[in-house]
Amino acid sequence: MRKYNIAVVGALGAVGREMLKTLEQREFPVEVIKPLDILSNAGTEIIFQGKPVVVQAAETGAFKDVDIALFSAGADASKILAPIAVAEGAIVVDNSSAWRMDDDVPLVIPEVNPDALSWHKGLIANPNCSTIQMLVALKPLHDQYGIKRIVVSTYQAVSGTGQKAIDELNQQIQDYVSASPIRSNVYPYQIAFNALPHIDIFLENNYTKEEMKMVHETNKILDKNISVSATTVRIPVFRSHSESINVEMKKPFVLDEIFTILKSAPGVVVVDNPAEAQYPMAIEAEGQDSVFVGRIRRDLSIENGLNLWVVADNLRKGAALNAVQIAETLVQKNLL
Amino acid sequence: MRKYNIAVVGALGAVGREMLKTLEQREFPVEVIKPLDILSNAGTEIIFQGKPVVVQAAETGAFKDVDIALFSAGADASKILAPIAVAEGAIVVDNSSAWRMDDDVPLVIPEVNPDALSWHKGLIANPNCSTIQMLVALKPLHDQYGIKRIVVSTYQAVSGTGQKAIDELNQQIQDYVSASPIRSNVYPYQIAFNALPHIDIFLENNYTKEEMKMVHETNKILDKNISVSATTVRIPVFRSHSESINVEMKKPFVLDEIFTILKSAPGVVVVDNPAEAQYPMAIEAEGQDSVFVGRIRRDLSIENGLNLWVVADNLRKGAALNAVQIAETLVQKNLL
Repeated sequence: MRKYNIAVVGALGAVGREMLKTLEQREFPVEVIKPLDILSNAGTEIIFQGKPVVVQAAETGAFKDVDIALFSAGADASKILAPIAVAEGAIVVDNSSAWRMDDDVPLVIPEVNPDALSWHKGLIANPNCSTIQMLVALKPLHDQYGIKRIVVSTYQAVSGTGQKAIDELNQQIQDYVSASPIRSNVYPYQIAFNALPHIDIFLENNYTKEEMKMVHETNKILDKNISVSATTVRIPVFRSHSESINVEMKKPFVLDEIFTILKSAPGVVVVDNPAEAQYPMAIEAEGQDSVFVGRIRRDLSIENGLNLWVVADNLRKGAALNAVQIAETLVQKNLL
Repeated sequence: MRKYNIAVVGALGAVGREMLKTLEQREFPVEVIKPLDILSNAGTEIIFQGKPVVVQAAETGAFKDVDIALFSAGADASKILAPIAVAEGAIVVDNSSAWRMDDDVPLVIPEVNPDALSWHKGLIANPNCSTIQMLVALKPLHDQYGIKRIVVSTYQAVSGTGQKAIDELNQQIQDYVSASPIRSNVYPYQIAFNALPHIDIFLENNYTKEEMKMVHETNKILDKNISVSATTVRIPVFRSHSESINVEMKKPFVLDEIFTILKSAPGVVVVDNPAEAQYPMAIEAEGQDSVFVGRIRRDLSIENGLNLWVVADNLRKGAALNAVQIAETLVQKNLL
């Protein structure tokens, strides 16, 4: 079986580390692993498949022997480096928002629109974490009933902002316990014991960029005719995003059918037993590959309405895992 | 000016303490304060208006000299004690869910439906915390544009469950910092660093009782024709509930008008300046009397749709303050 040279760009970040772990856990056929990061981190040693590997600088020339480069280095770095990597012969799977809405770049969730990979031109975008878990849950329902409108409110973990935000919540919690003053650097306000309706920057229409990502990415990946209204909120959770999703469908449904469809949907695990107080939870999704769906109930306020509570590990399915799955699909479909 | 004998039932609970504080802060004309609690707490001394007062047992006979009894002792206690208090001549303002949907009991938010107090028969119900803050924000919009449908997702503080839940979050945070095992007693699962889509018990339709309270109370207080879909979620915040509210109105609106209406609405403070990252937040609402409204933006997914982020202190406007405001309105309208 052929093996591949894989670069991970941003290898020391929260998502980069998870990409390396995911490649190991899923036994991706790696010939050579090439962890790349900013120049000042070059020389750092990491362990991959039990062996030490030295982190190199992510720069021109670093991609010449690379088959697939998994990027999680932020949008600014990606805008510069991804085209260089492609020019040097690598296929780039980019986790940033830099290329997602580019008409020449497929935006792919393997369970939802794997066929979009067929027209890639060297660069493939990984969707936003909040969009991925929502669409993995909604795709099988859209196929069956046709989704007309989505109203979603998110409960997002700090790890979505990166390692520095994880550190900040940790520090604020420790300062709270020791009755020290709580300081905020990563977020504009305290995140411990708070809820911030502010993820990414504010746009001219007074939505945040995170909210509009959920709109535009849903339209690009699933269906351009679906209307989406999003409110995205950061809460003091380390890992896994939760989403309260209200859906209006075109066709009538029987609730039992919804359960049946979701239980057999790829990437979905249904956790829904109110009598036993079972529903998806952030702390249980951590480290898991699946998208967990529960609180499945008919919306009594509108015809063909449905409510769902959807939870997934934002660093796994929301980022690293989806990128590795794209790489796996490229191999399976012989699209390298 | 006439002064009144006021009993606070459940005086040592989180809401009871806040009721006593609110009576002091708003200089309610109190002749005698009578803090009542369960028998085992009788004899405890509290301070009211700078003077020590002894807590007495909440029992038959305790309400004979009471003008107004503010109840926050839970639904079970209220079902037994509130009729006794009324029979003994007190007017009861009850914070539990016991009487809210009773046709003979007005369910009142003074900014929304004060006129319902006119037909009281000795017992008046205080709405659920989540309902109060939502309707204070939506009432002026309903008057102007007619609300057709509400989709709401909540981000609720542990203090809504009471002092024992505040203690549990505190303990879990301390155990996390000291790397001790985290135990859960009040909630079925860890609340620290988690989000629980489970408030109050599950009902036969798989909604929680908290979710259906928001439906039924909105219909009783504001308009029986408004459709409501609610998802209620507990998050690791000590105090103040946040709500992501999506509204579909009957009539078209200009967004500037919405700002103008909300800015002059009773009990509402608009905090909405995306350019300066200003929006309502739980940690800033704590201890405040107002309902804070922000993230005001047109819902792009439907005609006449609007999104709001609404935050209020669940122990103040969501409970104690609303009850004291009902007492104030009874005095003003001469309805004692």
